[in-house]
Amino acid sequence: MQPALRRAFGVARLTRHHQALPFRASRSGSPPTLLDRWGARTLLDVASGVPLRLVLWDGSTWERTAAPEFTLRIASRHALWRLLRDPDLGFGEGYTDGSIEIDGNVHRLVDAVASALQRTRLPWHRLARRVTHRVGAGLDAARRNARHHYDLGNDFYRLWLDENLVYTCAWFPTPAASLETAQQQKMERVCRKVHLTPGLRVVEAGCGWGALACHMAREHQTTVRAWNVSHEQVVEARRRAAAQGLEGRVTFIEDDWRRIDEPCDVFVSVGMLEHVGPARYAELGAVIDRVLDRGHGRGLLHFIGRDHEAPSSRWTRRYIFPGNYLPTLREVVGRVLEPYGFSVLDVENLRRHYTLTLEHWRDRFERAAPEVTRQLGERFTRMWRYYLAGAHAGFAAGYLQLFQVTFAREGWDSAPWTRPV
Amino acid sequence: MQPALRRAFGVARLTRHHQALPFRASRSGSPPTLLDRWGARTLLDVASGVPLRLVLWDGSTWERTAAPEFTLRIASRHALWRLLRDPDLGFGEGYTDGSIEIDGNVHRLVDAVASALQRTRLPWHRLARRVTHRVGAGLDAARRNARHHYDLGNDFYRLWLDENLVYTCAWFPTPAASLETAQQQKMERVCRKVHLTPGLRVVEAGCGWGALACHMAREHQTTVRAWNVSHEQVVEARRRAAAQGLEGRVTFIEDDWRRIDEPCDVFVSVGMLEHVGPARYAELGAVIDRVLDRGHGRGLLHFIGRDHEAPSSRWTRRYIFPGNYLPTLREVVGRVLEPYGFSVLDVENLRRHYTLTLEHWRDRFERAAPEVTRQLGERFTRMWRYYLAGAHAGFAAGYLQLFQVTFAREGWDSAPWTRPV
Repeated sequence: MQPALRRAFGVARLTRHHQALPFRASRSGSPPTLLDRWGARTLLDVASGVPLRLVLWDGSTWERTAAPEFTLRIASRHALWRLLRDPDLGFGEGYTDGSIEIDGNVHRLVDAVASALQRTRLPWHRLARRVTHRVGAGLDAARRNARHHYDLGNDFYRLWLDENLVYTCAWFPTPAASLETAQQQKMERVCRKVHLTPGLRVVEAGCGWGALACHMAREHQTTVRAWNVSHEQVVEARRRAAAQGLEGRVTFIEDDWRRIDEPCDVFVSVGMLEHVGPARYAELGAVIDRVLDRGHGRGLLHFIGRDHEAPSSRWTRRYIFPGNYLPTLREVVGRVLEPYGFSVLDVENLRRHYTLTLEHWRDRFERAAPEVTRQLGERFTRMWRYYLAGAHAGFAAGYLQLFQVTFAREGWDSAPWTRPV
Repeated sequence: MQPALRRAFGVARLTRHHQALPFRASRSGSPPTLLDRWGARTLLDVASGVPLRLVLWDGSTWERTAAPEFTLRIASRHALWRLLRDPDLGFGEGYTDGSIEIDGNVHRLVDAVASALQRTRLPWHRLARRVTHRVGAGLDAARRNARHHYDLGNDFYRLWLDENLVYTCAWFPTPAASLETAQQQKMERVCRKVHLTPGLRVVEAGCGWGALACHMAREHQTTVRAWNVSHEQVVEARRRAAAQGLEGRVTFIEDDWRRIDEPCDVFVSVGMLEHVGPARYAELGAVIDRVLDRGHGRGLLHFIGRDHEAPSSRWTRRYIFPGNYLPTLREVVGRVLEPYGFSVLDVENLRRHYTLTLEHWRDRFERAAPEVTRQLGERFTRMWRYYLAGAHAGFAAGYLQLFQVTFAREGWDSAPWTRPV
């Protein structure tokens, strides 16, 4: 494991836990008290509707349904109460460090729990959901946050993403289409939504490994300037553009979106808004307004969102995406677009396409899991398994959305007469 | 002219004006002063970019361009200063009462002025635009407001709408399609967006002459309950449903949307939100939340909107649509849908389709103008000509939008995999 990775995930520190924790309590802890047993029953109440059996550290068993599909083994009092206090953080940390084990499919369990939580919630979880954490990162923090996730090593992402390393929601013409096809079609559809024509100047904010930037230049003869703060991604994106002979037409800039300053005809951002934070939405709108052509300028924002304001899960923010915030459509329209007089032309919610995308990623990840563990350790594999399971559960249950918002300067008249399917 | 119409438009009172005003000033008023002449120059500045000649009541001529396309004859000092104080109200009232006359096409002139006003505005107009008038009608006022417009007499609307009396934005598969085709396709597209299937219970809030309600019942075998406060429209809608043998499946209720109380699978409202007023958006959301199925419920809101908050034109609110307010997308998503946890599935801006719809209406209206004048008087014809011209100008210049918002209960999974074109 690379030192940067160890730092990013605090692996040195957590490895200690990892060695110490799993089922240690089952060997040395005191047996469950009356309060622990109340806690176990409460957990089953929260997850009512999920065919679940709990096994506590003394081997005692709790269940509400006959022949439950899932067995959750909780190895310590600490793991039980961490789970009760904050199910998301507690489950994520417990599953990652091995103090929670599952007999059965973790992806299916997380889906089932998420779906049940849509219906019942403990009062303190509802309260927690109301407290919206306003996150917004300074330039340094933004760079750190992005590197935490995207500098994990291209080798890692190559193990389970498609060949073009597209790490955002795909668009499946039919549910049976391959992930490769669906990512190609997603990119082409983005191009059609903003009506790319040869010679246009495109700015892309947050470009990943450059697949969309290369597609826009190669398939639509545009000139693309694509921004990204992740060094590893920019290096790989440049390599890929060069391999396609696109050096003259695609430029990758390793810098923050706030420094975008060149005029453009089209502004595209796919999967970056999640990292911007609501405190910076007005600034993002100002950047777009500053660079976008006043007559025919148009753009597209593609982002994971919500139906109502809520903080991202604490576990996700702590371990996967520091600084992550998923906005509502109202927040993006009201703070990024409306203050600058942009017209919203089209909004599409691709939630179910993201559920399917995540199923592909999950299957590929599980096939690559032995190799991921060899490269990055068991703890990392479990953490990412839980992350992918949680994301899938959110889209499947319906509390995460994927919005594609197409916008333009007021009065832009040159789009095709009807929209893409 | 019917007495109700006379009352609605204050025709008794205004006929007096009409007889007294036109060009009376040119015969009896004092010649333009220095201030009047400054006013004339200011008008040309405001409308800079419009090839315009002004002729004041003494015959004096003002122009900035050689061979202007339009000549505006201003018959009195009063008409000039009313126009300067509030161009929209002043032009509308002046054109209606004949104290402003136009050599050239009034529709083209209004388009040109609207387009120019997008670029330049007098400081006090900008100020006026910022003061958002919060309108919201009580039940009685809502009924009065609707009757003012929609009880004008079905004979009148039959003169220039399509055969099904659809008085909302059409959807043209190509710009060359007929209005009849485009209205049919609009209705069918609405049905596809909410995924109508046989046997579903539909509520329609604000149903006009019932064309969509009949279409949904006839073409998709649904049961429709459609609400409308306009007596004339409901009578005609019932007649039309009966003629199609749909009595058992479509019910028209002459009442306010706030009293909608029966459970439904689909909630549709096409062209009513403009009359609701922002103070009632939360109430509309609550009504939808109360009646819509908790599992598979979905709906569609179709409304004229704006890119940023602004009051409707004073002239429109005074003479055409009392209580009218055109919301931004943020207002509707944030106040009607988000508080009740609905997922936005799809938003489409049909602005250019409304420009084209209005071109059809305008042409039909002009062909019917002699008959309109015979039935309702010259003043009425001029008023409606200006109304249609102003609406067209708003969509053509880009400051009016037509949003179709499709929404559903969070997690609804049964829509077709891809959206309609």
